[in-house]
Amino acid sequence: MTDQAHMRRAIDLAAHGRGATSPNPVVGCVILDASGQVAGEGFHAYAGGPHAEVVALRAAGERARGGTAYVTLEPCDHTGRTGPCALALLEAGVARVVVAVSDPNPTAAGGADRLRRHGVTVETGLLAEEAGRGNAEWLTSVRLGRPHVTWKYAATLDGRSAAADGTSQWITSPESRADVHRLRGEAGAIVAGIGTVLADDPRLTVRRPAAEDSPAGVDPALPPADGAPAMRPPLRVVVDSDARTPLTARVLDGRAPTLVAVAADADAGALAARTEVVRLARRRPYGIDLAGLLSELHRRQIVSVLLEGGPALAGSFLREGLIDRVVGYLAPALLGAGAAALGPAGVATIAETHRLEFEDVTPTGPDLRLTARPVPLKEM
Amino acid sequence: MTDQAHMRRAIDLAAHGRGATSPNPVVGCVILDASGQVAGEGFHAYAGGPHAEVVALRAAGERARGGTAYVTLEPCDHTGRTGPCALALLEAGVARVVVAVSDPNPTAAGGADRLRRHGVTVETGLLAEEAGRGNAEWLTSVRLGRPHVTWKYAATLDGRSAAADGTSQWITSPESRADVHRLRGEAGAIVAGIGTVLADDPRLTVRRPAAEDSPAGVDPALPPADGAPAMRPPLRVVVDSDARTPLTARVLDGRAPTLVAVAADADAGALAARTEVVRLARRRPYGIDLAGLLSELHRRQIVSVLLEGGPALAGSFLREGLIDRVVGYLAPALLGAGAAALGPAGVATIAETHRLEFEDVTPTGPDLRLTARPVPLKEM
Repeated sequence: MTDQAHMRRAIDLAAHGRGATSPNPVVGCVILDASGQVAGEGFHAYAGGPHAEVVALRAAGERARGGTAYVTLEPCDHTGRTGPCALALLEAGVARVVVAVSDPNPTAAGGADRLRRHGVTVETGLLAEEAGRGNAEWLTSVRLGRPHVTWKYAATLDGRSAAADGTSQWITSPESRADVHRLRGEAGAIVAGIGTVLADDPRLTVRRPAAEDSPAGVDPALPPADGAPAMRPPLRVVVDSDARTPLTARVLDGRAPTLVAVAADADAGALAARTEVVRLARRRPYGIDLAGLLSELHRRQIVSVLLEGGPALAGSFLREGLIDRVVGYLAPALLGAGAAALGPAGVATIAETHRLEFEDVTPTGPDLRLTARPVPLKEM
Repeated sequence: MTDQAHMRRAIDLAAHGRGATSPNPVVGCVILDASGQVAGEGFHAYAGGPHAEVVALRAAGERARGGTAYVTLEPCDHTGRTGPCALALLEAGVARVVVAVSDPNPTAAGGADRLRRHGVTVETGLLAEEAGRGNAEWLTSVRLGRPHVTWKYAATLDGRSAAADGTSQWITSPESRADVHRLRGEAGAIVAGIGTVLADDPRLTVRRPAAEDSPAGVDPALPPADGAPAMRPPLRVVVDSDARTPLTARVLDGRAPTLVAVAADADAGALAARTEVVRLARRRPYGIDLAGLLSELHRRQIVSVLLEGGPALAGSFLREGLIDRVVGYLAPALLGAGAAALGPAGVATIAETHRLEFEDVTPTGPDLRLTARPVPLKEM
């Protein structure tokens, strides 16, 4: 097996941690012994849990001595909730470390340097793009100082999210809707605009697919995964410049924490007595400073945001360059009238079109799930 | 090899005739000798050319005696431009005939009966659905007495076909646009509304992909395929109830025949002096009787129509149940404003949504080509 094959395995291992490591990155590690046989594998399974290198080194034991470690992210050199991984690799006697993505985090970086200073061969950049995609949320957070934003929409082939009379349940299939709950489960926060809250009264919680059929009264919140600490449910965020969220809205049902973002001058007394409210500068066109909202979420260690609409809010995020990924659930259906999935996004003429590139196309039941990213791709 | 594998091969062979057999169906044939070895293959290559069975029998020669023939469509029993295929199979001594689709055409059917009467084992229905899809145009024509209609559109992820200022060139890639010319080449007629003619002044001819770069003045019309007679270019049809097509429109450039469909009471004198005009009953909302237009095209032996828009015309066809296939070219792009790909289609509420099912998803350059058909599928 080649270096590339081992690194790809490490990338696959890393993916097992998706949704549970926040605010840490996902990391995978494969360790070969001196003869080139796989001696240990590991991944970072949840925030506060052991790092991938430590898990793999434990599995390898003495066989790590003189061997090679493949790590999807540069081993850390700082003591956080766990000791520095660079030191653990040194102590285990690993002779060579192959790294996909260098650590952009100033407080954690330096692992490669420390290893080199102690005579370990370190190579970086192998499958960096692929490994970076797996950590897109975390890398965006570290590099841009704001959460990674995924805009999710559901629409017909002609791009509509509701019929002329406003009805929209259901345009997409149960399989697509279950997949949305998977996306929600991976997000640190779920963001919706006040228009959506008033029109659809969504709960914005994570439900397991089976819960669709569960009797009323059964709490459909995600239970803790086996062996891992209970996962914090995603923060629900309502963008509501004039503090119009009804006190009876489902999003205030207490099943998950909720933050309502209002304009600095909004009259939010009653709302603030009921849930957490953050005040942000008033900005056109959407009513509040969206970049400021993302900074606020960053301060709360939120790494990834799922933006669920509506069209006006999504258009405003897009116009400000604050969307990193688009996930569209496309139903094989045609409406010919009704609300568009996306509202004004600052495009007046064809040359200003927001260009993306498809990254994945997967059927979800009878629908298609399209994943695309803006181009040129932001530096990773 | 199984019966199914041989029939699938016959279906593949049939597909070679696509676009050249109209108003005939595409047909493929595989002939095995008595020992089960493939002795001959054939397909119907162009209207007026030999039928698939005859081509395959010629290749098989004496080896056909006692053998099996796989045919995608029931062998004809009438003498048209060629003799009846049922007779040819009898004369060759074929012992067993496996048919995918029975012939729904009353003037040609009866082949299976004739074969059975002469002691040949005949089995029908093997891979009928698959074979039927390859002949969807012809089957629609025979069964419904009107051409098969494919609606083609190009749009962004948010379902828009133009930016807010009306600019639309180009939303999709050169690869997608080349693929549209392939679709045009397979159609008997290309239909556009007067709005599209006034806005975009399209030529509605078939161009080969390379012709995109050809110097002005080079005629880009499709040349005859090797060995086949020159293909008739698709009829260009403008739906123009009030006879507003400008005499300078490219669609009147003489490179292909053009038919302008106007309302019975329209003042079309100047236009009629320049090109062929057909008068149809005035109907809301689009201005003329669209089913009547399709009947007129059927009378002209046109089996398949490519409907190229605009949104209002497409919506009217859809509302009347006159669309059999949708081909969408979806660009990885977002506009947030501008004309929708599809206009009013008679849907007021979500329960009335026009439902389809995806049949194919294929990348065309950076874009996706989505093919879908209305459900429940029309009887084939």
